[in-house]
Amino acid sequence: MINKQSPIPIYHQLESFLKEQIENGTLLPDEMIPSEREYAERYEISRMTVRQAINNLVSEGFLYRQKGKGTFVSKKKIEQDLEGLTGFTEDMLARRMTPSSRLLSFKIIPADIEVSGQLKIAQQNHVYEIVRVRLADGIPMALETTYVPADIVPGLTEENSNRSLYEYIEKNSSHHISEAHQEIEATAARGSEAELLEIAVGAPVLLIMRTASLDNGTPFEFVKSIYRADRYRFIHKLKRK
Amino acid sequence: MINKQSPIPIYHQLESFLKEQIENGTLLPDEMIPSEREYAERYEISRMTVRQAINNLVSEGFLYRQKGKGTFVSKKKIEQDLEGLTGFTEDMLARRMTPSSRLLSFKIIPADIEVSGQLKIAQQNHVYEIVRVRLADGIPMALETTYVPADIVPGLTEENSNRSLYEYIEKNSSHHISEAHQEIEATAARGSEAELLEIAVGAPVLLIMRTASLDNGTPFEFVKSIYRADRYRFIHKLKRK
Repeated sequence: MINKQSPIPIYHQLESFLKEQIENGTLLPDEMIPSEREYAERYEISRMTVRQAINNLVSEGFLYRQKGKGTFVSKKKIEQDLEGLTGFTEDMLARRMTPSSRLLSFKIIPADIEVSGQLKIAQQNHVYEIVRVRLADGIPMALETTYVPADIVPGLTEENSNRSLYEYIEKNSSHHISEAHQEIEATAARGSEAELLEIAVGAPVLLIMRTASLDNGTPFEFVKSIYRADRYRFIHKLKRK
Repeated sequence: MINKQSPIPIYHQLESFLKEQIENGTLLPDEMIPSEREYAERYEISRMTVRQAINNLVSEGFLYRQKGKGTFVSKKKIEQDLEGLTGFTEDMLARRMTPSSRLLSFKIIPADIEVSGQLKIAQQNHVYEIVRVRLADGIPMALETTYVPADIVPGLTEENSNRSLYEYIEKNSSHHISEAHQEIEATAARGSEAELLEIAVGAPVLLIMRTASLDNGTPFEFVKSIYRADRYRFIHKLKRK
């Protein structure tokens, strides 16, 4: 599999080979891969070359290192389709994972400039602010801060907000959920975010900002989410116009 | 604008206020903002509080620091709509920015495992590999590596690939460009990427992988792009099903 006559650099060949082994299940999630020395000896290449391939696979999220232990295969990233408007609970159930939430705070506060702008309400109007860590199969995936106008979704409590908010709204409102505007950015995890998501400070994360509206056009939810970039990717289809 | 009686933390109030000034143009792109000391004195708050607000705005990309000079307002991020399938050149022209490219390499190489899988061709089949820095108004925005099967787009040269590839294909092929599958991830800029994009090593970047097809279903392009996260965000609409 390593062809020293090929114009493709050797570290790149090793990278492709390891990626293929991860894709086809020869290497399994959380399995420890052979050491740099073993790869170097097996393919008669330099340890520097092996290190470059492994560094690249770590930075791309295919592998992860554990200090003093070794290098392991990452779990496959969750692919989130950008087509339909669904909540976290619905998403995880659809892929047969068990969603759960850890509620960090539940408050009613006056809307600040950003929140009132997104929800099209007056500043100082009351909103629920719900901060949650969202988990899938017990692993922290995202840190979500949700703002919901208090007068649109009355009767929201710590309890019922901790299940699917979308289900709650569709059951308790005369309106249906219609559509959302979403923004996707990349940023670096800050201290408290990193701690809650169990990643390193400064690790790349996806910042998702969503404003969702009811079928009468009223925004009912503004959500800022920080998703772990090592566990999540977004996919979608583009059509040529 | 700072209300010490409000339940909203003061650093958060200052953050919102500065964001508003950036949004409404009171603070202009590349303008230096007042020092921590000035804000602290003006609003009778601690320098620690000012620092926290400014740190947050830097990490969110609203402000940037220049060593030994001060803190400045960032240029507004480019909002890339995920709806239509367009190339970089078309995108930039549509927003009245001047697109340009710096060609780093142009090669014909045998496809590796990943590229052949994405383009649905046999391994070792020849593909063009085009590596370019894409610039908007002279500022590096993205590092793009494009793979195009050599037999689908014959006659591609350094010269004509450096204009709009999509335009070239639509003029020189009997088929039309139809649709693409795209993946969006966040990662950290590696050494060479950071240098080419003029950002810090380890800075968050958006990794976009796109496979585009012709109307007969044949993939004609696989592109891996690294976008500067401080200059780019992706936006799209979601519909409730």
